[in-house]
Amino acid sequence: MKHIINVIGMGPGEERFMTDEAKLALDDSDVIVGYGVYLDLLSERYKDKEFYQTPMKKEEQRCRYCFEEAVKGRRVSLICSGDAGIYGMASLMYEIGKEYPSCELFIIPGITAASSGAAILGAPLNHDFCVISLSDLLTPWEKIEKRLRAAAEADFAMAIYNPSSHKRPDYLARACDILLEIIEPNRPCGFVENIGREGTKSEVCSLIELRDKKVNMFTTVFIGNSTTEITDGKLITKRGYLIEVS
Amino acid sequence: MKHIINVIGMGPGEERFMTDEAKLALDDSDVIVGYGVYLDLLSERYKDKEFYQTPMKKEEQRCRYCFEEAVKGRRVSLICSGDAGIYGMASLMYEIGKEYPSCELFIIPGITAASSGAAILGAPLNHDFCVISLSDLLTPWEKIEKRLRAAAEADFAMAIYNPSSHKRPDYLARACDILLEIIEPNRPCGFVENIGREGTKSEVCSLIELRDKKVNMFTTVFIGNSTTEITDGKLITKRGYLIEVS
Repeated sequence: MKHIINVIGMGPGEERFMTDEAKLALDDSDVIVGYGVYLDLLSERYKDKEFYQTPMKKEEQRCRYCFEEAVKGRRVSLICSGDAGIYGMASLMYEIGKEYPSCELFIIPGITAASSGAAILGAPLNHDFCVISLSDLLTPWEKIEKRLRAAAEADFAMAIYNPSSHKRPDYLARACDILLEIIEPNRPCGFVENIGREGTKSEVCSLIELRDKKVNMFTTVFIGNSTTEITDGKLITKRGYLIEVS
Repeated sequence: MKHIINVIGMGPGEERFMTDEAKLALDDSDVIVGYGVYLDLLSERYKDKEFYQTPMKKEEQRCRYCFEEAVKGRRVSLICSGDAGIYGMASLMYEIGKEYPSCELFIIPGITAASSGAAILGAPLNHDFCVISLSDLLTPWEKIEKRLRAAAEADFAMAIYNPSSHKRPDYLARACDILLEIIEPNRPCGFVENIGREGTKSEVCSLIELRDKKVNMFTTVFIGNSTTEITDGKLITKRGYLIEVS
């Protein structure tokens, strides 16, 4: 019999953004593993469970713990914020899982910040779009830069994850400078902080204004495409190029 | 007082993939509006509600109905499959909503096929990615082609929506031919049909094999990036380029 490990996307934060599939998997677990900030968001409902957390950058240790517990016969769920497979732990779990052939992964999707942030701003991604992380911890900056340029040139709307951190406070400005080589300065943009958690705030602005906004690791940034407008404070991308509403 | 209309992403299908936020909004509605296929997926839980459906391509009529009912004081929810703001009705609702200033939209995100399909295949989008629709109903084909090229050249993983329909059975082959100008033929890919519904099936294959696969309007296609591998039948994209698991 295979040992099943759930890899769960919990969505942006509060329990009301989780799916039943995710909640039932957690109900059925002996131990819930994750980054502390996300474990803290889980409600009273799971207080009889054993929690295991590792700090940021200890993702591998966190994943290995899941397999070590699972092979003992314990029912394990690993939680990720947003979606399990969008900058989440699914990939690393499969990688490490090669060493644990008795274990099988069950990936449970969750609502990623591209969706939850867009819902707050209006409809900024309502056509083809790219999701790009500005974190160069595991990706060379040149690759990120190339993707920003490609996305701008092909007129994709964009959701930008990890736009800033303590160690790289100027990365959003650097990204905007690249986009401004291709996109007009007044292109409608927006950003959302603490989506689905206490202290949610959002703002719409132009690309040139975005350049100097203070953002942090809990901010998701949205860049409109050539059809995007700001109407009544909402950021709206048309769902096509051939549309007339009559 | 504003008349609130909920625009709800119901996720891939079955109720267990919906969030509490979506379900509570439906519970609180007098009338639920949507495309028939999706309304049919709603369970017994909502059987006391009034349903209103329009066929495909009658989206505008569907949206107008929501506003007309809302201004009468009825509580209205419009459901979309997947996410409300990813090829969903959010954008069109904002557009038509300009004519109904007493109404306000509340967008409730759902799990889009990029997330739910990826979870079935493994972790194909576990790094920067693009979402591209092959439907040229509202978008010139040249624009779609440009985006496919840009995505391939910048090494994005891709989720491809609407890869085929009765009227355009060869669009996936056309898209693959464009990608094959840039990407090697054995690039790992995959596709999922009927995600989260009866008859779910999935397959992994190479890009050249994908070219001749039979897909339909309920299929979502995934193209790996340069790090993507097929391992034990799962499609896995590395979460970075600088990783060694020790």
